[in-house]
Amino acid sequence: MSKPGINAERELVHLLWDNGFAVMRAPVSGGATKMPRPDLIAGKSLIGKIYAIELKVTKANRVYLEQKEVDDLIFFAKRFGAEPLICVKFKGKRLGYLFIKPELLRRTKNGNYVVDLDFAISRGDDITAISEGIFQQRFDDYYNNDGNEAK
Amino acid sequence: MSKPGINAERELVHLLWDNGFAVMRAPVSGGATKMPRPDLIAGKSLIGKIYAIELKVTKANRVYLEQKEVDDLIFFAKRFGAEPLICVKFKGKRLGYLFIKPELLRRTKNGNYVVDLDFAISRGDDITAISEGIFQQRFDDYYNNDGNEAK
Repeated sequence: MSKPGINAERELVHLLWDNGFAVMRAPVSGGATKMPRPDLIAGKSLIGKIYAIELKVTKANRVYLEQKEVDDLIFFAKRFGAEPLICVKFKGKRLGYLFIKPELLRRTKNGNYVVDLDFAISRGDDITAISEGIFQQRFDDYYNNDGNEAK
Repeated sequence: MSKPGINAERELVHLLWDNGFAVMRAPVSGGATKMPRPDLIAGKSLIGKIYAIELKVTKANRVYLEQKEVDDLIFFAKRFGAEPLICVKFKGKRLGYLFIKPELLRRTKNGNYVVDLDFAISRGDDITAISEGIFQQRFDDYYNNDGNEAK
């Protein structure tokens, strides 16, 4: 992860701590191991929630995730006993950190995933929702049954 | 953690993965943050267990833990929703990794903790027990009610 990404990661760690979680972030190095791992793992016993979190930071209005990145996140979370979450920070947008369940992600034609700014604003959950374990996200609200965006 | 400690930590990560856990180890650096964190966090959804693990490696026949180290481990585990475990590796003893619940630890006169080789052998649990979530440890077996060792 790039330097700006690391700064955002540290900021997110503090934000989660301030909201009642205990948090561990993955070592930056350690690519020697082939074992998948998320950027962060955060648990809050008061609400009985544990999240495996992959953080994406962008200056643009959309961010892409590779299929393997999302697959690894889900694999780790299932094995660990956590809920997988994508967290997106749109730099300069004053939106804070927005959390999205991977099953809500839109796929691109080549099998990867994309999160658009509009989608993250309308369907992402903020730190308050995450901290209470309450998600407003509804798959059917945003997508039709054929997987295309609803109008 | 020293270099030998890091090697043991990596070995333990692999051992836990091979036994069905998903594992994340803490960054070596990052002492800038004051937030407590264990050496490892390991979850295994198949048995519904999550362990926060502090690893100690020694060439001697006993290993000491500072009071703050144990307090921080317990604090993190409670907040996260995990079970705290001390893991001890006695180098050159071919005992593997032995896991001990912090409440079983004997205290020294100055308030710190100590794990003796004999105690770890007789009361520690091995990777198999940890992987099945079954502990043989009994506080009353080893200590009398006044906290002194039973004869």
